[in-house]
Amino acid sequence: MRRVFRAVPELSLVPRPPHRENLSLHVVGLALLFLVPGMLIATLVEWGSLTSDGERPLLVAALITGTVGMILFAGFGPPDDVRPSDVFPVVVWTWLSCSVLGALPYVLDADVLGWSQWDSALFESISGFTASGSTVLTDIDSHGRGLLLWRQLTQWYGGMGMVVLAVSVLPLLGVGGQELMRAETPGPESDRLAPRISGTAKRLWLVYAGLTAAIAVALFAVPGVSLYDAVAHALSAAGTGGFSPYGGSIGHFESLGAELVMATGMIAGAMSFSLHYRALRGDWRAYGRARDQMLFLKILASATMVITLLLWVRQGASFGLSLRDAFFNVVTLATSGGFHNIRPGGLGDFAAWTPPAQVVLGVLMLIGGGAGSTSGGMKVFRAQISAAHALRTVRLARRPRSVVPVKLGGAVIPEPTVGRVLGFGTLYIMSFGVGTLIVASLGADPVTAVSGVISALSNMGPALGEAGPSSDFTVFARPARLVLAGLMIVGRLEITAVLLGAAVIVRHLLRRH
Amino acid sequence: MRRVFRAVPELSLVPRPPHRENLSLHVVGLALLFLVPGMLIATLVEWGSLTSDGERPLLVAALITGTVGMILFAGFGPPDDVRPSDVFPVVVWTWLSCSVLGALPYVLDADVLGWSQWDSALFESISGFTASGSTVLTDIDSHGRGLLLWRQLTQWYGGMGMVVLAVSVLPLLGVGGQELMRAETPGPESDRLAPRISGTAKRLWLVYAGLTAAIAVALFAVPGVSLYDAVAHALSAAGTGGFSPYGGSIGHFESLGAELVMATGMIAGAMSFSLHYRALRGDWRAYGRARDQMLFLKILASATMVITLLLWVRQGASFGLSLRDAFFNVVTLATSGGFHNIRPGGLGDFAAWTPPAQVVLGVLMLIGGGAGSTSGGMKVFRAQISAAHALRTVRLARRPRSVVPVKLGGAVIPEPTVGRVLGFGTLYIMSFGVGTLIVASLGADPVTAVSGVISALSNMGPALGEAGPSSDFTVFARPARLVLAGLMIVGRLEITAVLLGAAVIVRHLLRRH
Repeated sequence: MRRVFRAVPELSLVPRPPHRENLSLHVVGLALLFLVPGMLIATLVEWGSLTSDGERPLLVAALITGTVGMILFAGFGPPDDVRPSDVFPVVVWTWLSCSVLGALPYVLDADVLGWSQWDSALFESISGFTASGSTVLTDIDSHGRGLLLWRQLTQWYGGMGMVVLAVSVLPLLGVGGQELMRAETPGPESDRLAPRISGTAKRLWLVYAGLTAAIAVALFAVPGVSLYDAVAHALSAAGTGGFSPYGGSIGHFESLGAELVMATGMIAGAMSFSLHYRALRGDWRAYGRARDQMLFLKILASATMVITLLLWVRQGASFGLSLRDAFFNVVTLATSGGFHNIRPGGLGDFAAWTPPAQVVLGVLMLIGGGAGSTSGGMKVFRAQISAAHALRTVRLARRPRSVVPVKLGGAVIPEPTVGRVLGFGTLYIMSFGVGTLIVASLGADPVTAVSGVISALSNMGPALGEAGPSSDFTVFARPARLVLAGLMIVGRLEITAVLLGAAVIVRHLLRRH
Repeated sequence: MRRVFRAVPELSLVPRPPHRENLSLHVVGLALLFLVPGMLIATLVEWGSLTSDGERPLLVAALITGTVGMILFAGFGPPDDVRPSDVFPVVVWTWLSCSVLGALPYVLDADVLGWSQWDSALFESISGFTASGSTVLTDIDSHGRGLLLWRQLTQWYGGMGMVVLAVSVLPLLGVGGQELMRAETPGPESDRLAPRISGTAKRLWLVYAGLTAAIAVALFAVPGVSLYDAVAHALSAAGTGGFSPYGGSIGHFESLGAELVMATGMIAGAMSFSLHYRALRGDWRAYGRARDQMLFLKILASATMVITLLLWVRQGASFGLSLRDAFFNVVTLATSGGFHNIRPGGLGDFAAWTPPAQVVLGVLMLIGGGAGSTSGGMKVFRAQISAAHALRTVRLARRPRSVVPVKLGGAVIPEPTVGRVLGFGTLYIMSFGVGTLIVASLGADPVTAVSGVISALSNMGPALGEAGPSSDFTVFARPARLVLAGLMIVGRLEITAVLLGAAVIVRHLLRRH
């Protein structure tokens, strides 16, 4: 049976008659229009900056993006019927288009990357929008403040998602809009915060903007952090992105205060924004009811304790220093932020930590944050359900005919959900295998290839081996970087959306020719 | 509902009245008695050897093992009712006991390891019985021929399994015997070859012995291979073990013929012995009907082709040499044999291969061989079912309410089987994570720790990093070796049996005190 969702035409923002029906191009156009204010703000900042004058490329990028966005948004309208199969190509097209046009500031400025390095520009753009934070810019500090602000803004847009942003102003999409959001937002079920789906999307973006503002204010209160620094880092902290306008990342500030604010911001970013909304409305107990979110906090606390002890006992650092560097790096990797705090006299370079501490970090990286958050990785609720199913397998081996449900905190998880979670895990492992094979074929040594692929799939940022936290992704061959960028999108959109979207797009193209 | 299996007392081999009822100790005793002929043969070989005289420790080991086995076998009998929950501790106790007493030849001879290195002896014994093939003997060639033959024999016993061997002469166990075999034999369902389960077990062991004899004859026909060499390598090839009396493994012979015979033997060992039995009875088409076994052969062929091309094009070796070394190493790693063919002028050291070739080997290692074989890894049918489920997840994302069964070659796989396979995969990954954490904590660098744990869990033998094919497992700290030995048993008995067995044993011990 094929479900058909009816749109609500009388509420449409755009006059209906003149356009052709194409949901993908309509949403793509809207998402691109949302990028324009960001590009304009970056232009203004660059214009006001005394140290560089790269405002022209940024302004041109804004004009191109705005023009393309306007043509698509006005030229195409949503169809009357939105089917679930229409949803996935919309998401994939939106991400691809924003990544391509978001790369314009890098290629239009020959001092940054220029047209000859279009693939590096695309990588940087995708790494930004997917909130990964891997970079191929070698001397970050040398670039203009406007361009670097745009780089931070890509992470902010991508953190909550351009599709959610588009849905927030598209009241015409009924259930189809919810399907769209679900394809972009990680979680078992999207949580309805308002009767209309556009209301839910709007509330999520408002909470996200509020969190960003709060982080910026708190950072600005830290001595030694300028307003620009505060805003730039707040943008990438809320989206758990990892970009910084400084090559030294948070280590640049050499400030415990800045690290604590950033860590707190990343923790908030890695927890459900629906819960934040409910808490802001007064329902603080909503956090306590969400077992996966509470478990995430417990995981952070235990990992910090274990790594503090390891650094203190094994590496002979002082207890205070061990605690500081363990906490920041546990948070930055568990939330898939990917900032680092390497600084003189500190322990921030986790690639130099004792092996068990590195293994703990690896596990945190794979698990990721809470459902409905901006974090990457497989997410805590999937880890919980997988572990519960594994225990059930052992029980069933003993009593093969009994029926044992998978339970989480007393609640029975429906079997289709369990199947979906396990299927996700398998797809994740398959993407990992195929990705590693290709990246290694393109010349990376095994450790760099494996850690690079895991980092890309979990939208982390730094890898290990030659692409560690103190290095960058230029160690990968140029074609390998494009594969990694593809894996970042796979990781951000949680695989199934990408596979289905790509399948529908390919089928559509084949049918045309 | 609790199933109760009735034993068939009138067919018991042992007089019933005087003994106490304990299935575990009864089976353990029988398994130990089966080890005694092996130890005696090793004693005879050592006695006849001109280069060493270590026959006394081997004879003493045989006497101790025989005495303990006789006391347990005669002193304890099976209970009238065998419940499924009784099965798992039997399997775990049998493996632990055989490993402990099988380590006697190493500790009783001070020139080999001696009592001070009891943990290394236990490691070598477990690595033997689990058909892993990792070693902590540093100068293998220096030891006596008898001891080295015992080392080969442990792999032969463990390849098909001591519990299956015990069941083959225990006609008294009805359905309980089948449960026992299933706990030790990898595969979706154990295949009944005879009306009685002991008949099935006997036929499997006969086919296994026949395969071993065939490999030995073929190897002996290769110029430069002595009768001792032929028998010793046939024992570990049929069990896909990986031990060799030579430090140079198969590379010692510098012979294409020896490599081809060994590879053919390992392929046969990594395919279902039930199918071999049916083929020997004239039903050759049985192979074609078993899709996982055919896929295994296709995987071997494709991987050999890919790696041949990689070695030929990228490493500049001749086509013939590339094909030879690609084939041997693909087979030895895909079957979890773990022999190597490092020799002057060859390409046997896969740790020096181009990275994509190494990644292919890693994937082969994880997948393993066919169901019902002596190979390790997760097994091809599990990879097939996992992949089919993953594809289903993608389809269901598009049409959430439809019902899509998992199919393999047209046949629908029952949902409980799919769940079991996915649960197995999750347990495998969890064992991998916990194992890596512990091994890394005990001082191994990340690459060595990760590859050592994967190697142990898939009963492979060599790892990467410092424990590569041209090295040994003495690079791991002594406690880390015991952890790896535990993981070998977990891998060999496929996790659930170990977990359940251990749980039942612990509960039993707690109840006593």
